[in-house]
Amino acid sequence: MTAKHRVVIIGSGFGGLFAAKRLKRADAEVTLISRVSHHTFQPLLYQVATGILSQGEIAPATREILKRQDNVEVLLGDVTTIDLSARTVTSSVGVLQTITEYDSLIVAAGATTGYFGNDEFEPFAPGLKSIDDALELRARVFGAFEMAELQQEAADAEPWMTFVVVGAGPTGVELAGQIVELSHRTLKRDFRRIDPRDARVILVEGGDGVLSSFGPKQSRRAGEQLERMGIDVRLQGMVEDVDESGVTVKYRDGSTQHIATRCVLWAAGVAASPLGRQLAEQSGAGLDRAGRVQVRSDLTLPGHDEVFVIGDMIALDDLPGVAQVAMQGAKFSAKKIRARIDGKPEPTQFSYFDKGSMATISRFRAVANVGSLELRGFLAWVAWLFIHILYLVGFRAKLSTLGHWAVAFIGRARSERTFTLEQARGALTDERERRDLEAG
Amino acid sequence: MTAKHRVVIIGSGFGGLFAAKRLKRADAEVTLISRVSHHTFQPLLYQVATGILSQGEIAPATREILKRQDNVEVLLGDVTTIDLSARTVTSSVGVLQTITEYDSLIVAAGATTGYFGNDEFEPFAPGLKSIDDALELRARVFGAFEMAELQQEAADAEPWMTFVVVGAGPTGVELAGQIVELSHRTLKRDFRRIDPRDARVILVEGGDGVLSSFGPKQSRRAGEQLERMGIDVRLQGMVEDVDESGVTVKYRDGSTQHIATRCVLWAAGVAASPLGRQLAEQSGAGLDRAGRVQVRSDLTLPGHDEVFVIGDMIALDDLPGVAQVAMQGAKFSAKKIRARIDGKPEPTQFSYFDKGSMATISRFRAVANVGSLELRGFLAWVAWLFIHILYLVGFRAKLSTLGHWAVAFIGRARSERTFTLEQARGALTDERERRDLEAG
Repeated sequence: MTAKHRVVIIGSGFGGLFAAKRLKRADAEVTLISRVSHHTFQPLLYQVATGILSQGEIAPATREILKRQDNVEVLLGDVTTIDLSARTVTSSVGVLQTITEYDSLIVAAGATTGYFGNDEFEPFAPGLKSIDDALELRARVFGAFEMAELQQEAADAEPWMTFVVVGAGPTGVELAGQIVELSHRTLKRDFRRIDPRDARVILVEGGDGVLSSFGPKQSRRAGEQLERMGIDVRLQGMVEDVDESGVTVKYRDGSTQHIATRCVLWAAGVAASPLGRQLAEQSGAGLDRAGRVQVRSDLTLPGHDEVFVIGDMIALDDLPGVAQVAMQGAKFSAKKIRARIDGKPEPTQFSYFDKGSMATISRFRAVANVGSLELRGFLAWVAWLFIHILYLVGFRAKLSTLGHWAVAFIGRARSERTFTLEQARGALTDERERRDLEAG
Repeated sequence: MTAKHRVVIIGSGFGGLFAAKRLKRADAEVTLISRVSHHTFQPLLYQVATGILSQGEIAPATREILKRQDNVEVLLGDVTTIDLSARTVTSSVGVLQTITEYDSLIVAAGATTGYFGNDEFEPFAPGLKSIDDALELRARVFGAFEMAELQQEAADAEPWMTFVVVGAGPTGVELAGQIVELSHRTLKRDFRRIDPRDARVILVEGGDGVLSSFGPKQSRRAGEQLERMGIDVRLQGMVEDVDESGVTVKYRDGSTQHIATRCVLWAAGVAASPLGRQLAEQSGAGLDRAGRVQVRSDLTLPGHDEVFVIGDMIALDDLPGVAQVAMQGAKFSAKKIRARIDGKPEPTQFSYFDKGSMATISRFRAVANVGSLELRGFLAWVAWLFIHILYLVGFRAKLSTLGHWAVAFIGRARSERTFTLEQARGALTDERERRDLEAG
């Protein structure tokens, strides 16, 4: 009896999880390694950040999802090293190191927030890529109103009541829209000294329009919609600096503007997992500016038929960093691995089928592009609702999410506003101010 | 027109929140100051820790609860100083200080976990008093199984599969019972290398029985029940030391025992808020060993008719640290303040009416004492279910909690297992080990 083919998957996002699922009937031993114990349903992170959903609803335990799939084991671990010649993956939790050997490797480690070389922005402008991020943003958004209420002078409350969202892709638009909903509906009666409806939401975008990937017509209409909601959309603006005093924006016409704010949310860029660099260095594959790996047309690494890279980590044919690319990449690589194990002809060319994309603008309003069909408004929103419930993992999560959506959209309340002291420390206090104070 | 009577309430627990509610019709300006933005329903914290409930379900935003009560404002802030002669309360969030004047003060700042002078145990044996604590325990409990799965040697997995709960009051018993449920039901099929059913749960108690406040008969039967569930109950044992290697227990017979464990949960002691000491020092009131203030029989501070201390912070007639004491203290002080404002005769003597107490042992089993009536088993559990749903704040929380309970008790799943990287860092890694490693 020969030993079974060993497949290692790195990551538990859409790519990693679906690769594991697609290998269900493969005659292989599959090990999925991830630095978090859950699968994060990223498209709804903004709802955890704004108090609609709990983390459990969009982040079920990976091993719970895969528990009936006997050929998969799930290991917690941050992958530190991939050794392409030894065919091993080294992962660690604290001081505990684990080395796992593979015959086939699927790297689906995703992307984190990217600051275009300005990593010093990060403490002042967190992104939204993980459950940790979402809970941090939750503390920042709800905490900002708390801080505004505490100010003696109205002028001091203003920066806390000014929310700047950088980047007008789906995440940025959804965050901005939700903050408006919060301030106008959820929090309307909650405060005594401030009026939450005075909150300003500014959406800064480097390009010529919001949601530009949806085409010029959708983009223009979405922009008008956001303006009607009271969102201050500032196009052609690049963020030059972020610190505790606010954001400095430089516009394409050469003008510069400083916005005083204490709450900046960064939805502008991505940086592929640093594992991309390791793969590139060892294989000679190219890397693009966001650190994505230039894979071959069958998603393998040059010179390494046994190594697949999928999802947000790849630079191939300008594919966008969306769930569908990761899931289809997972399906393709699993198919190829299965064919290889079974000694059958392998598919040679990955081709992405764009099932469409959508973004919510406010409750009851969304945009959706499906093929050449452009939907807007309520119809698009219903499509959004349907698709997201469909793709949420688990019947329980679907049910309780529907409940929370009813509460938030038909009612106006948010059931999951709780933020912890741990998060509040980073969000509401100012290390620099405190250090200055202590220094005298 | 004379200025309104100003009431300041410190704390948003059962005491603080219900004091504010009871002052609804008072002709007063009420300010509630709390270091957290939510009201924590402490009796269900163990369910957040063990993945049944989300934090939002048991910790709604305080200002949301009180939003329709126009005479109350809610301020976020950690109270650092109470000045009894100036009649001011100073609170802070980071560098932002707020000074609030009062005519009447209700101090309901509660208690934290107490280590009987051994605060060095804390990093290895966190307590369960706050939402932060509950999320930390969640990471420790679920994370321990993750770490066990990663070990190469079975012997190395054992300490991760050994859970020691210190203290067999309701919280300790409930935690121990839930860990058994997790290992035998929820996680049964989730792992490949370990069998979660091999987990050992050890309950260490200094006294002669578990749940001793429920009387000898209930205590004995509860003890038997726990043993049948597979919990190793060790009575008359005091914890002498806790570090990353485990727990050292000294028994009353003089013997000493070291239990190798990586997951110790501390449910053994409480320490009143340090504000108690300030009040004692300024008023000459006595303090007991747990830092509780010896108030007068009308809950006021000696020499300070205008200062009430309620809930877990008081040492009076051996009253227990339970929600009912806090809520009835809140009702009494609010009544007294209202009488004072209205120039009517004030109640002079607080008397506690014991409505009974209850604790769950496993799903479908509980103990409950109501007056001289001692309930056990399923009937007590139904009573527990009914009472807890009744007291949970908000219709939405009641509904979604019932849903999660159906999932957890009738089914076997836990919908809220998600832990963050932030929490996992503290729970699963070992700073000392890492430092040793770095030092060479």
